[in-house]
Amino acid sequence: MLINCVAYQDGKRLGEIQPDEIHRYLATPGCFVWVAMLERDAAVLEQMQAQFGLHPLAVEDAKHGHQRPKIEDYGDSLFVVLHLLEPEQDGLRVGEVDLFVGPNYILTIRSHAEQGFQAVRARTESEPELLKLGSGYVLYALVDAVVDRYFPLLDAIETELEGIEDRIFAGSSPRENVEALYGLKQKLGIFRHAVAPLLEAVNNLYGARAPRICADMKDYFRDVSDHLQRLNQTIESIRDTIATAIAVNLSMISLQENETMKRLAAYGALVAVPTMIAGIYGMNFKHMPELGLEYGYYVTVGLMVAIDSYLFYRLRKAKWL
Amino acid sequence: MLINCVAYQDGKRLGEIQPDEIHRYLATPGCFVWVAMLERDAAVLEQMQAQFGLHPLAVEDAKHGHQRPKIEDYGDSLFVVLHLLEPEQDGLRVGEVDLFVGPNYILTIRSHAEQGFQAVRARTESEPELLKLGSGYVLYALVDAVVDRYFPLLDAIETELEGIEDRIFAGSSPRENVEALYGLKQKLGIFRHAVAPLLEAVNNLYGARAPRICADMKDYFRDVSDHLQRLNQTIESIRDTIATAIAVNLSMISLQENETMKRLAAYGALVAVPTMIAGIYGMNFKHMPELGLEYGYYVTVGLMVAIDSYLFYRLRKAKWL
Amino acid sequence: MLINCVAYQDGKRLGEIQPDEIHRYLATPGCFVWVAMLERDAAVLEQMQAQFGLHPLAVEDAKHGHQRPKIEDYGDSLFVVLHLLEPEQDGLRVGEVDLFVGPNYILTIRSHAEQGFQAVRARTESEPELLKLGSGYVLYALVDAVVDRYFPLLDAIETELEGIEDRIFAGSSPRENVEALYGLKQKLGIFRHAVAPLLEAVNNLYGARAPRICADMKDYFRDVSDHLQRLNQTIESIRDTIATAIAVNLSMISLQENETMKRLAAYGALVAVPTMIAGIYGMNFKHMPELGLEYGYYVTVGLMVAIDSYLFYRLRKAKWL
Amino acid sequence: MLINCVAYQDGKRLGEIQPDEIHRYLATPGCFVWVAMLERDAAVLEQMQAQFGLHPLAVEDAKHGHQRPKIEDYGDSLFVVLHLLEPEQDGLRVGEVDLFVGPNYILTIRSHAEQGFQAVRARTESEPELLKLGSGYVLYALVDAVVDRYFPLLDAIETELEGIEDRIFAGSSPRENVEALYGLKQKLGIFRHAVAPLLEAVNNLYGARAPRICADMKDYFRDVSDHLQRLNQTIESIRDTIATAIAVNLSMISLQENETMKRLAAYGALVAVPTMIAGIYGMNFKHMPELGLEYGYYVTVGLMVAIDSYLFYRLRKAKWL
Amino acid sequence: MLINCVAYQDGKRLGEIQPDEIHRYLATPGCFVWVAMLERDAAVLEQMQAQFGLHPLAVEDAKHGHQRPKIEDYGDSLFVVLHLLEPEQDGLRVGEVDLFVGPNYILTIRSHAEQGFQAVRARTESEPELLKLGSGYVLYALVDAVVDRYFPLLDAIETELEGIEDRIFAGSSPRENVEALYGLKQKLGIFRHAVAPLLEAVNNLYGARAPRICADMKDYFRDVSDHLQRLNQTIESIRDTIATAIAVNLSMISLQENETMKRLAAYGALVAVPTMIAGIYGMNFKHMPELGLEYGYYVTVGLMVAIDSYLFYRLRKAKWL
Repeated sequence: MLINCVAYQDGKRLGEIQPDEIHRYLATPGCFVWVAMLERDAAVLEQMQAQFGLHPLAVEDAKHGHQRPKIEDYGDSLFVVLHLLEPEQDGLRVGEVDLFVGPNYILTIRSHAEQGFQAVRARTESEPELLKLGSGYVLYALVDAVVDRYFPLLDAIETELEGIEDRIFAGSSPRENVEALYGLKQKLGIFRHAVAPLLEAVNNLYGARAPRICADMKDYFRDVSDHLQRLNQTIESIRDTIATAIAVNLSMISLQENETMKRLAAYGALVAVPTMIAGIYGMNFKHMPELGLEYGYYVTVGLMVAIDSYLFYRLRKAKWL
Repeated sequence: MLINCVAYQDGKRLGEIQPDEIHRYLATPGCFVWVAMLERDAAVLEQMQAQFGLHPLAVEDAKHGHQRPKIEDYGDSLFVVLHLLEPEQDGLRVGEVDLFVGPNYILTIRSHAEQGFQAVRARTESEPELLKLGSGYVLYALVDAVVDRYFPLLDAIETELEGIEDRIFAGSSPRENVEALYGLKQKLGIFRHAVAPLLEAVNNLYGARAPRICADMKDYFRDVSDHLQRLNQTIESIRDTIATAIAVNLSMISLQENETMKRLAAYGALVAVPTMIAGIYGMNFKHMPELGLEYGYYVTVGLMVAIDSYLFYRLRKAKWL
Repeated sequence: MLINCVAYQDGKRLGEIQPDEIHRYLATPGCFVWVAMLERDAAVLEQMQAQFGLHPLAVEDAKHGHQRPKIEDYGDSLFVVLHLLEPEQDGLRVGEVDLFVGPNYILTIRSHAEQGFQAVRARTESEPELLKLGSGYVLYALVDAVVDRYFPLLDAIETELEGIEDRIFAGSSPRENVEALYGLKQKLGIFRHAVAPLLEAVNNLYGARAPRICADMKDYFRDVSDHLQRLNQTIESIRDTIATAIAVNLSMISLQENETMKRLAAYGALVAVPTMIAGIYGMNFKHMPELGLEYGYYVTVGLMVAIDSYLFYRLRKAKWL
Repeated sequence: MLINCVAYQDGKRLGEIQPDEIHRYLATPGCFVWVAMLERDAAVLEQMQAQFGLHPLAVEDAKHGHQRPKIEDYGDSLFVVLHLLEPEQDGLRVGEVDLFVGPNYILTIRSHAEQGFQAVRARTESEPELLKLGSGYVLYALVDAVVDRYFPLLDAIETELEGIEDRIFAGSSPRENVEALYGLKQKLGIFRHAVAPLLEAVNNLYGARAPRICADMKDYFRDVSDHLQRLNQTIESIRDTIATAIAVNLSMISLQENETMKRLAAYGALVAVPTMIAGIYGMNFKHMPELGLEYGYYVTVGLMVAIDSYLFYRLRKAKWL
Repeated sequence: MLINCVAYQDGKRLGEIQPDEIHRYLATPGCFVWVAMLERDAAVLEQMQAQFGLHPLAVEDAKHGHQRPKIEDYGDSLFVVLHLLEPEQDGLRVGEVDLFVGPNYILTIRSHAEQGFQAVRARTESEPELLKLGSGYVLYALVDAVVDRYFPLLDAIETELEGIEDRIFAGSSPRENVEALYGLKQKLGIFRHAVAPLLEAVNNLYGARAPRICADMKDYFRDVSDHLQRLNQTIESIRDTIATAIAVNLSMISLQENETMKRLAAYGALVAVPTMIAGIYGMNFKHMPELGLEYGYYVTVGLMVAIDSYLFYRLRKAKWL
């Protein structure tokens, strides 16, 4: 579905144009065309391929979707894939935006994601002197916007992890903790798949061999790369913490088992000792002087209570109870 | 066994030819010969070696089979080994296809695999303008077909893993889960051995030092490499998840042990307390006033029931039962 | 907040100057301006941007803060971010110092950290012949000071780890040990985030492609790099030790469980055997000669004591008690 | 001990020569000398050093033995160390063969290994046209023979591992499994020490910077490298599987513990319940109507049997028994 | 403390000289000065700095000590730090030797280590033709001596590990095993810190960019590098084995727990069954025909013994006892 199809000249918006006029604007010097599509649409995509002269392999990728983040250099144009992450009930939804970037055009195809790039377009239109720099700048603005949206999601994962940590050390609900850590690790995996390949790709945009389109934007892409490195570092750090937390949770489970066993033993002792004493005075020997004593029974029960009280005191002191 | 032996001129099929005429077609300008063999056959292979002038080391490898995926550059020709994976009861069958690729010929030897490459041949024959590009294009078409067949198999592994995950967190059949995870890891190992060396090899087909045969196909091989990277990433991700799942399953086993122990202790308590009380009233003291009470026995049994009911209520509340 | 704004000439302090005079001093040959700010302050920072002609991306980073340690080369100037670590109750506070380093100026912005750089300024002012070398030397002095402050903090972590190790092998408080190891690992993560990216960045200051500002200071920056490598090595070593310590602690927990179980079994035996004997002599058979014996009861109780004494002796010898 | 000392001319065997004539044959154009020694022998080695002009550092290494696999380039000659692996009761015996390879000579020193290289010599002598290529070809033939002998040994390790896997999942003898896995890991370590450094060394024999002696053999050494990579991949794969198998075995041990505990609890219940009932009817209350019933005893014992039967049925259904 | 201060000419010892004459000998062509110091001594070090013209950063490092092993190239001189390892009660003492190596001098500062380098000096003095090569050769001789001393220490660690392995599989003293493995890992860490950075540093002494001082010694330093690689490989191998051993020990602990539990259950059964039978015949039913039988008691006790004997036989067969 086509959302926008706008032409710019010298950084200023000329207005919406018809899709089949695109090639005329592309031929006009100083003109720049920015087209935005929503969800994959083979028919529109083929029209665009004709207007912009897109490379068939890149178009094929864009039609199929589900690509890894990448920046492919086709000589005079770039094909860029970015993952769009959005929170979903119990997880992350992975959307995608595919960008075709030529010297004087940019075509974006967003899919499986709710949040669009209207804000980016508005911001760049408000800075004509930057928009004049052409597609390199728009590419930067789009990539930067996508990357900036990763930060709050990763912060949420960190917060979730801290909550689990607290529960682990409070010793509560180890089963839920394991499950939550496992779920968190899955989410983090989605994040890594979005960030790590993109970092690698962006690093090629500001070195000595950067594509011509991005030649004037090196400092800007280095800045994006720096953000991605920060994300990457945080991801690795969380990953490491989750692994440790799983191990620690296992230790906690073993510790609880230990404590369960101690309590079990302690209560067992409190019951077994009176049972043994009762058994002894339940023997049928003819000559058992205690049995004939007037207060024998009371003394014996008293003895049982006394022994159990003492045991209870000792066991509590030893933290078995 | 020889399946096909077809000559092409300027991208059009000339028809089946006799194996011993191959060298004449190779000498004809614009001619291209594509031979397909099934299973290793030393005699036919030696005939082919004579017709095509294959390198003895490559022929030796093809005779023995069981190579790792690789692309060997013998100056004017390539020797390519690919793994063919097909689902088998409880695992993956590893077949192999060996390709000898010269400037104007391609020889494929498929073994241990059911699915052939008829579809690839049909598709390339239907696109004469691409087939005209020669052996580089046919090599691409074959490698691309092999790699495309990996995706549904890997998807099946992911689905299997998700099933195991559900069982782990449902706490059911930990023994089967461990066994299934182990089996999955073995399968994944087979996958890695097919994908990782091939990725490395394909990366040499589109860089600055790509072999001459593939010189015009660089964008295409980069696309294959991209698919392989996607597979590789998924494999690493599943691998990591399996390791975590094994650790999590161990935690679950410990948790169940913990719970078994608690139930054990709870039932023990329900039996031990009445036993102790019965023991006390089984003592043979002469003076035990309760023994003479008319309803002593009923009161005592009632007491046992009352204590056990209370214990049962408390233990259930504490989730020990 | 502006703390200092000092101009130097030929290595000697000229004195405090007004912020709006900075550009005049920068234009004076042989002059060097060193400005120190505390906490981020957008207004002052913009004033500085105007005076020094700072790069907008670097200023943007400095305004936001929370950067990873890095050294960005903007051609004629460097933007440097360092983490300042200070001990805090139960952890490490991560402060930051951002440095803008030009050929004849240095601007430092310290935030979230108590300890300042007065000592560094004093030391460099006392060595005019080094200060004459300009901003490269001041940069070195500041980075060196920051790195030197890391050592005692890492020593404290090592000491803490040794304390936990002692407790682990003494078998005391496994729960606290796990928690302490986990906390230590978190602290160490903070350390790594401060040291590892900085090491990478500093390595670019003394190689063949070192920025012009640092050209005369190569031996000095190699020295800093060496310190950072030492820190890095220690961090990796502690990390590895913590992982082992967590595994060892789990072994210790299992061992204690084992021992608890043995003690439980031993005490159980000491109670169960007399109970069994008492049970036997509590049977109501008419013909049980022992029951009629005058000292039967005493012999039986004696027997119980004897058996238990023997069991006790055996169990103690077997270290079950 | 000297085994053979043979001179060749133009690929044909001239026959055994005296050690002190070696230098004369070396001076003859088209001549090639191949000397084989068994076990280190300082005196013979020094004689050889004089005859061939060997480098003192290489001779020193050969005298001491116990080197890692390596290929050292001394300009006009190579010093090669290979590990020879042979099965030994409960392990692998690590032998060594040291090769001095010059333009027109080869000296082999085999030690701690039973199988010799007679077969290699016989094969090369039967192919004079290859032997004519000189020491590069003989070096290839020897390295290839050593590497080929690794394959069946590694297959044996894989088979052993599969046997252990079967036992693990059958749940039998976990103690033996752990021990066997540990032993297997040790063996695999020996293998890695033989293969990994050799792979690295052989990779230098076919690149752009290959030594002159091996210049004509590049395709051959690439083939050896390919075999070594295959071995290396298998080793890594087994290593990974062993680690997983150890973890899985631990899970199995925990599972068995769980099951032991359940059976323990189940049998305990079968005994405890009748004991409780018996205790109740062993109480000495005056008024216990059941005690006077004619069939009370039989009913009670019948009740015990009935309860136990029901318990047994339930426990069996729950797989506790 | 100054130990030796010796001048050499053309490989021959001239004799001890006064420290303040050093600069005169350095100015004499063909002269070489070798100074040995013991423990750091700021005053002497400053005298040496003046005599030899040492770089202030290197002197600073030497004054502080506690450096990581490294080889720093200061253009015309090298600053080398090596770790000296010596066995100590329950661990390794880490000493240090700092070397200042110029074209015609060498200054060694040994600290925290008992064993000196008299043997190295004696050996080099006995080979004037090698000593004539100058400081490169002496540097090699010293580094080689230090590295050679590492081997027996690492062998001792391997032997210690084998002892622990035996104890693990014998199932004895798991607590001591864990502690010993942990201690071993710490020792190994010290070793790695000595070997790994040195290996990296030595690798720079024989490549294309080797410092001028070492230019003639490339084969020799490659030999040292080879020794270091062998050490490194062994260290990595032991490290890996220790990690596996810790995991295996944990499995063994779990197995022992399992066995303890089985024995516990078995003995429990042997006591519980007679107790149950006794309880039954302790019931007070009026009509219990067995109670009146003349040999009822003996038969019952006999029954108990019979059942226990049978249980004992079964449990022993099932290896629970």
